[in-house]
Order: sequence, then structure tokens, then C-alpha cells
Amino acid sequence: MTPPTATTPAYRRLSVTERRRQLLGAALSLFAQHAPEDVSLDDVAEVAGVSRPLVYRYFPGGKQQLYEAALRSAADELELCFGEPPAGPPTERLARVLTRYLAFVDEHDAGFSALLRGGSVVETSRTTSIVDEVRRVAAEQILLHLGRPDPGPRLRMTARTWIASVEAASLIWLDEGKRPPADELRDWLVDQLIGLLAVTAASDEETAGVVAGILRLETADSPVGRLARQVVPVVSEAAHLL
Amino acid sequence: MTPPTATTPAYRRLSVTERRRQLLGAALSLFAQHAPEDVSLDDVAEVAGVSRPLVYRYFPGGKQQLYEAALRSAADELELCFGEPPAGPPTERLARVLTRYLAFVDEHDAGFSALLRGGSVVETSRTTSIVDEVRRVAAEQILLHLGRPDPGPRLRMTARTWIASVEAASLIWLDEGKRPPADELRDWLVDQLIGLLAVTAASDEETAGVVAGILRLETADSPVGRLARQVVPVVSEAAHLL
Repeated sequence: MTPPTATTPAYRRLSVTERRRQLLGAALSLFAQHAPEDVSLDDVAEVAGVSRPLVYRYFPGGKQQLYEAALRSAADELELCFGEPPAGPPTERLARVLTRYLAFVDEHDAGFSALLRGGSVVETSRTTSIVDEVRRVAAEQILLHLGRPDPGPRLRMTARTWIASVEAASLIWLDEGKRPPADELRDWLVDQLIGLLAVTAASDEETAGVVAGILRLETADSPVGRLARQVVPVVSEAAHLL
Repeated sequence: MTPPTATTPAYRRLSVTERRRQLLGAALSLFAQHAPEDVSLDDVAEVAGVSRPLVYRYFPGGKQQLYEAALRSAADELELCFGEPPAGPPTERLARVLTRYLAFVDEHDAGFSALLRGGSVVETSRTTSIVDEVRRVAAEQILLHLGRPDPGPRLRMTARTWIASVEAASLIWLDEGKRPPADELRDWLVDQLIGLLAVTAASDEETAGVVAGILRLETADSPVGRLARQVVPVVSEAAHLL
């Protein structure tokens, strides 16, 4: 339990902030691969290349504190991606948010997986994990940009199921060696939300109003403009159903 | 550790199969509400209204065996919902599968939640939990009905993200007191897959071929026929983007 001394100079090269970040990074990579109960502070110390007492000095509450701090840091960074000024075509705003989000997933592979491991499949009134708070923030942002901060059940469910779909796509993307390229995945995720809103609008009046409002803000150059032109040959095959 | 005797007649009224099912049901309801490490065999015995030794008699491997058997029984039953003859309009087949699936979710509220708690957000090559096997089976069935048992990455990702979306919608549905009615949720989930396939077809040649093939099998009375008519006024608002 001897604290690090001058004989271990590597311990002193990092600032407190840097050291904390390093320990959180080591913890995240372990929690991404293993259930929390299978990770020990010795493992964290080993991955970080430091002594166990040093880990305890930064996280005197032990593993639980380190676990929560690690997830918290990943969640905070992720939530920063979601902020976007409410100006310009909404699908362009969404594309910018997704560009930042996928950069986070790309950079924090392990941290992202750990964050999702810490929660259930979707945020509900019974869930309280950190990732569920991230999902709640993401849904709020989407609904704000759709101009419906207090939406009906169908529109809210659309936002939340799309978020679940984005998480699934992100994990599959990591699992498949980050293929397709991030910008292709981003465009496809934007298209997915447009598609979901369109079919939901077909049977939900509120969503129909939202979609009409969005389309008035869109241009032929925006993602929905591109999709509209590309989808025409696809839906023309459905002419016999009308 | 005295086994139940003639002084505890309630223990003998059930057959072995019924008793086993009762214990699995009690276990599922507990695992749905709590992490596995927070559930004890005493809890299971209490919920089932039996003695701890009786639980051990049925599950000599203890909690781990009971946990796996409970998830296994829920998974087996769920997988039975997915089988559907490859005949008739594909969206009608999908609606029938979803009717059975939502009846399972409705009936096995706790078991369904426990099953999803036992896995990650999506099935990947690194996941091995029972729910991931269910997801794999579901994806295989969808791709089989789409006529692409060995699909490219985009089509496979479409099926898997839709499954994640269905799970999320199911949990939200349970959380919101099973609103909207199951048949409305079913129709909306069918519409979601149609929408996802349509937007994916816009940028993926294989999916475009699949969608064209499906549409040839559809009728004006099928779910996609209904959606096609309902979605026309929505997409007509996008005319200025073409």
C-alpha cells in the first residue's frame, strides 16, 4: 500500500486531470468488455499501468465510484454532441448531430459499449441508469427540433424507437469494423428517421403536422431532398397498390 | 432442509411440469424487476409460495440454473412465434408474426422484460446471451421471408435495427400500460419496416431488388397497400424537393 514515490516517475508526469482521464479510460475499456462484478480495481490499475493505491487515491469510493464516474464522463461527452442551433433545414441539423455522435462512437469505442451495457434496451419510467438519461436528453432534443417539446404518445415513441435503432446500428457498426464509412451510416440514419416519421404521419395526425412543418423548411439540397429523389423509383413499384 | 411432506398439501397439487412452470414464472418475475445478483432462491421460494428445498429439488444447480432455465423457457416460447409459412403477401405474414409476438409480450410482461435485461442492446458477434439468440432467429426469419437468407451488410443491418426498434417499442408499450391497443402497435411496426426498407432501397441496390420483389406479391388490401394510400398526402408535401 506504499504510495508512488520519486522512484516511479511515470506517475508524476500527468496532471490530476490527465491522470483522472487516464483512469476513467482504463475503467471504461474494462467495463465495456466485462460485467461490472467481474472487474477489479487491480484490473483497472494494471490496464492503466499504475498502482492500486493510486486508483484509490483518485476514487476513494472504490469500484462503484469509479464505475459511475466512468459512465458519467462518457455520458457527459455524448450529451454535448446533441446540442444544435434550431436553424436551417432540420435534416441538415440532424446530420450534423449524427456526425458528432458517430465521431464519439468511433473515438470512444469501449466507452460507448460500456455505457450501453449499463442500461436496458430503452429508457422507460422504471429505468434510472446513466445511459437512460442520455436517451432522455437525445429524445428531448429531437422533439425540440421537431417543434413538439410535449408530444403525443405516437410521436414520442417514434423518437425513442429511432434512438434504439441508432444505438443498435452503432454497436453493429463497431462490431463490423466500422463499415460502412461513418458518413454513409449517418446518411442512412437520417433517412431512417425521415422514413419513420413519414409512415407514422400516415396514421397519426400530430406527426403529419410535424412532417408538413419540417418539409416547408427543407430544400432540394438537404438530406430529405436527396432521399425524395432517390426514393421515387422505389415507391413507383407500389403504383398497383393505390 | 426437510422436504415438504403430507403436512404441506399445496405442494403436491401440481404436476412436475406445472410446478416447474410455476417456479420459472416466479423466477422470471423477479429477474424482470431485479439484477440476477440481487435475487436469491429464498425470494423465488417466497414468490412461488413454496419452500427453498423444493426450489432446489427442481433446480439442483441453484440460482444460475434457475436463471438460465427461466430465460430459456421465455426464449423458446418467443421463438415459436416467429415461424410463418412463406405464402401470401409478405406484410400480411409479418402482421401475423407480430400479432403472436405482441400476445407473448402482453402475457409474459415480466418474462419479456427479464429476457431483454439479460442481454445487450443488439446481437453482435461478441454477444452470447439467450436474448441474442432470439434476435438472431428473428433476423433469420425476416431475411428468409425477404428471400435473402444470406444478405449484404445493409439489408442485414436494416433487419437488425428494426428488431431493436420493435424491442424498444414493446418495452415502452408495457411501460405505458399497453397503450396504444396491440393491433395499432402491430400495424405501426409493420409500417416501420416498410418505411425502413423503402429508404434503404433508395441507396442500396440489393434492398431495392428485395422491395420490388415484395411489392409484386402485395395486394391493395395488404398492410403495404393501406400504408401506400395513407402516405400519399404526406409525401405530396415534399413535391418542392424533387
